[in-house]
Amino acid sequence: MSAEIICVGTELLLGDILNSNAQFIAQQLAQLGIPHYYQTVVGDNPERLKQVLEIAISRAQILIFTGGLGPTPDDLTCETIADFFGVALVEHPEIIEDITQKFTQRGRVMTPSNRKQALIPQGAEILPNLTGTAPGIIWQPRSEITIFTFPGVPSEMHRMWEETAVPFLKSQGWGKEIIYSRSLKFWGIGESALAEKVAPYFNLPNPTVAPYAGKGEVRLRISAKAACEAAAEALILPIEKQIKEIAGLNYYGADHDTLASIVGQLLRTSKETLSVAESCTGGGLGQMLTEVSGSSDYFWGGVISYDNSVKVGLLGVNPEDLDKFGAVSAIVAEQMAVGVKTRLATTWGLSITGIAGPSGETDNKPVGLVYIGLAGPKDEVVSFEYRFGTMRGRALIRHVSASTALDLLRRQLLTR
Amino acid sequence: MSAEIICVGTELLLGDILNSNAQFIAQQLAQLGIPHYYQTVVGDNPERLKQVLEIAISRAQILIFTGGLGPTPDDLTCETIADFFGVALVEHPEIIEDITQKFTQRGRVMTPSNRKQALIPQGAEILPNLTGTAPGIIWQPRSEITIFTFPGVPSEMHRMWEETAVPFLKSQGWGKEIIYSRSLKFWGIGESALAEKVAPYFNLPNPTVAPYAGKGEVRLRISAKAACEAAAEALILPIEKQIKEIAGLNYYGADHDTLASIVGQLLRTSKETLSVAESCTGGGLGQMLTEVSGSSDYFWGGVISYDNSVKVGLLGVNPEDLDKFGAVSAIVAEQMAVGVKTRLATTWGLSITGIAGPSGETDNKPVGLVYIGLAGPKDEVVSFEYRFGTMRGRALIRHVSASTALDLLRRQLLTR
Repeated sequence: MSAEIICVGTELLLGDILNSNAQFIAQQLAQLGIPHYYQTVVGDNPERLKQVLEIAISRAQILIFTGGLGPTPDDLTCETIADFFGVALVEHPEIIEDITQKFTQRGRVMTPSNRKQALIPQGAEILPNLTGTAPGIIWQPRSEITIFTFPGVPSEMHRMWEETAVPFLKSQGWGKEIIYSRSLKFWGIGESALAEKVAPYFNLPNPTVAPYAGKGEVRLRISAKAACEAAAEALILPIEKQIKEIAGLNYYGADHDTLASIVGQLLRTSKETLSVAESCTGGGLGQMLTEVSGSSDYFWGGVISYDNSVKVGLLGVNPEDLDKFGAVSAIVAEQMAVGVKTRLATTWGLSITGIAGPSGETDNKPVGLVYIGLAGPKDEVVSFEYRFGTMRGRALIRHVSASTALDLLRRQLLTR
Repeated sequence: MSAEIICVGTELLLGDILNSNAQFIAQQLAQLGIPHYYQTVVGDNPERLKQVLEIAISRAQILIFTGGLGPTPDDLTCETIADFFGVALVEHPEIIEDITQKFTQRGRVMTPSNRKQALIPQGAEILPNLTGTAPGIIWQPRSEITIFTFPGVPSEMHRMWEETAVPFLKSQGWGKEIIYSRSLKFWGIGESALAEKVAPYFNLPNPTVAPYAGKGEVRLRISAKAACEAAAEALILPIEKQIKEIAGLNYYGADHDTLASIVGQLLRTSKETLSVAESCTGGGLGQMLTEVSGSSDYFWGGVISYDNSVKVGLLGVNPEDLDKFGAVSAIVAEQMAVGVKTRLATTWGLSITGIAGPSGETDNKPVGLVYIGLAGPKDEVVSFEYRFGTMRGRALIRHVSASTALDLLRRQLLTR
C-alpha cells in the first residue's frame, strides 16, 4: 500500500507558485506511516492528466490530487478523473446550498460558474471544504484504488486534510508503521568529513541515518519506522547518543534549535549578557540572536559599525590601527569586541569584520576573509581568521560569518 | 521539444524540504520558451529512479535532474542515469583538482568520499559548480535526449543554471514562443485594494496581469508571450506604465529591486547618508540595507538598542521619557532616530521600536504595535504608529517593521 501525490496546475509548471502542498502532504503521510515514492506535477490538461493517472494507478493505491477544483473553465481535475474511470458526474444540491451560503456570508451572490463545483463522480463521497467553495472527494472507483481530491489553496487544503482525510486514512488501517525523524545539526564540520566519521550508521536499516547540507550547515536525519512515536523514539535515542558522542562539539542542536537559541540557553543558564559589533554582517548577527523570543534576557544590543567612523566613534577602535592593519584585521576585530562589551556593559562582546564581496577585496585580502573577535568576562579577548571562499556569494558569506560567530561563542561557553 | 523536471531526494518525499528547485527551473524554462508538462519527485532509489527515467524519455526530450550528486552513498543520481543508458563512469582529474582547491581555500582537506563526485558518464560534458563541490553534467546519451544534472542545494544550482545551462539552452534554439514577465512590487497597499484599482487588467489576454501576495508585500506579474524578449517587452511596457500611474507612490520597484536597493539608489543620488537605531528588529533593518552590495556608500551603521540601557547610553534617549511613555512609544522612537543621526553624523536617522511578540504585550500595548521614527537633514523628526496585528507572528512583524521603515524613508526622499 503506497500513496502518490499529484499536483495539478499550470501555475506550478510556470513556476508562479511554490508547491508547498506536496511538502505538507508528504509530511502528513510520513507521520501516518503511509509510504509514498512519487510526486507528480501536471498542468490543467485533461489528456496529460489522464496519462499521469494511468501511471499512478500502476504504482500506487492511494492517489492524492491537489488543484484544479476551482470554478473557472481551466479547472478540470474532478471531471477528468471521472472521465478516466468512465463514471458520470452528479450534481449535489447540498454543495450548491453550501456555496450559496458562503457567498451570502461574504455579502456576495453565487456566480453561475460555481455550480460546476457541485459536480461529483457518481459513488464518490464529498470531502467538505470548511473555508472555501471547492469541495473535494474521497472515491474508490475500483476496489484497490482510493482517490482524494483537494483544492490547491493551501489553507483550505490543510483544514480539509486534517479534519476529514486524516480520520479516514487512520480508520483504514493503512498506516502500519509511522516514520518519525529527528534532525541533528552540526556547525564547524563539512558534510563529507562528518559523513566519514559516522559512515557505519548510513547502513542501518531502522532507524536510518542520512546527511544533508544546508546553508553552511550539515544535518543528519535519523528516521525510525515503528508502530508509534514512543517506539520510534526508543529506536532513535541510542543512535542519537552515539552520533553526538562521535561529533563532540561539532553537534550543536536538534530539530528546531538554532545556533542563536542554543547560545541563548547557555547565556541564560550562566546569567550572562551579550553585545555585538558588526561590520560586514550589517546587523545580521543581532537579527539572528533576536529571532529567539525572550532574547532580551541576555542580549542587550550592539553597534553596526559599517563605516570606519562608527568603529572609531562608537566602539573606540584605534584609528592608527585601522590605518595600519585595515578594517578587516584581527586587531580591529578584537578592539570592536572589547569596545562593544565595555560600552554596553555586557559579559561578552562578539564582533565581525570581513569582506562579504563582491567588491572590496584587495591584493592580500580576498572576498570571504572574515575576522571574528570575542571579548570575555575576565577581560580576555581572542580573534579568529576565516576564509569563507571567494565564490560563495555575499549573502552566504554574511550568513556563515554570523553563524560562525555564534558557534565560536557557543564553544567558548561550553568549554571554559 | 519539451522538458521534464525530475527532483531526486528522499528528503522531498519525507516533506523535510520545499521543492524550490522545481519552481526555479519552471520559471527559467518559461522565460526560455521551452515548454514543460511534467515534474516528478522520486527518492534516492536506483530502481524507482530508472522507472521515472523510462517514463520521462517517452514524453520529454530534455530531462533536468536536481539532487543526489553529493559525496555520500545515498547520492546515486549520476551513476543511476549512466547505468540506465548502459554507459560507464569515468573519473575526471580536473574535477578532483577543483574539489581539492575548494577544500584548501576553506582550510580543509578533501575527504576520499568526495572522489565519487568526479565520476561522470563517458561522453558527458561537465557542468561546473562554482560554489560547491558537486559538478553537474550535460549529456546526450541518445541523439534525441539531453540530460542535465544539478546539485540539490539551491544556491549552487541557481548559479550553475544561469552561467552554464542558460547559454547552452539558448544556443540550441529550442525555445519558440518565450514567456517574459515583469514583477511590479508595491508597499503600503493591500492585495485586494490594489486588485480593485487594476481589476480591468486582469482580463487582458496578452500580456496577462496577475496579483501575488508576499511577506507583507503585493506584487503584480505582467507576463507576455512573444517571439523574443524585445517583442514581449514591447507588449509589457504600456501596461506597466499605466499600472504604475494608477498605483502612484505605492509602487516601489520591479523584479530584483528591494525597498533597500531603492532607498540606496535615492540616497546615492542625493549624496546623503543613513544610520539606524533598532529595537524590536534587532539588526534586521541594517541587515536589509547591507544586503545591497555597495551600501557602504550611504549606510554608515547603527545601534541595536535592544535593552533600554543601550537606548539611554548609546542613543541618548531620555530615561524619564522611557519611564513615562515606555520603550515602545512615539517619543522614544523620535529620540532614537535623532540620537543615532547625531552620533553617527548622517543625513538621516531611522528608528524602530515595537513589540514583536509573542510575549511583551501590556494592557494598552498589543503585540504588533510598532513606532518608526525618522530624523532628517533639517533636524526635523517625525514618527508614525503602526499596528501590524497580534496574529502575524514574531518573524513577520519584524520583517514588516523593517520594510515599513525603509518605505517611510523612500516616500520621504521622493516627496520632499
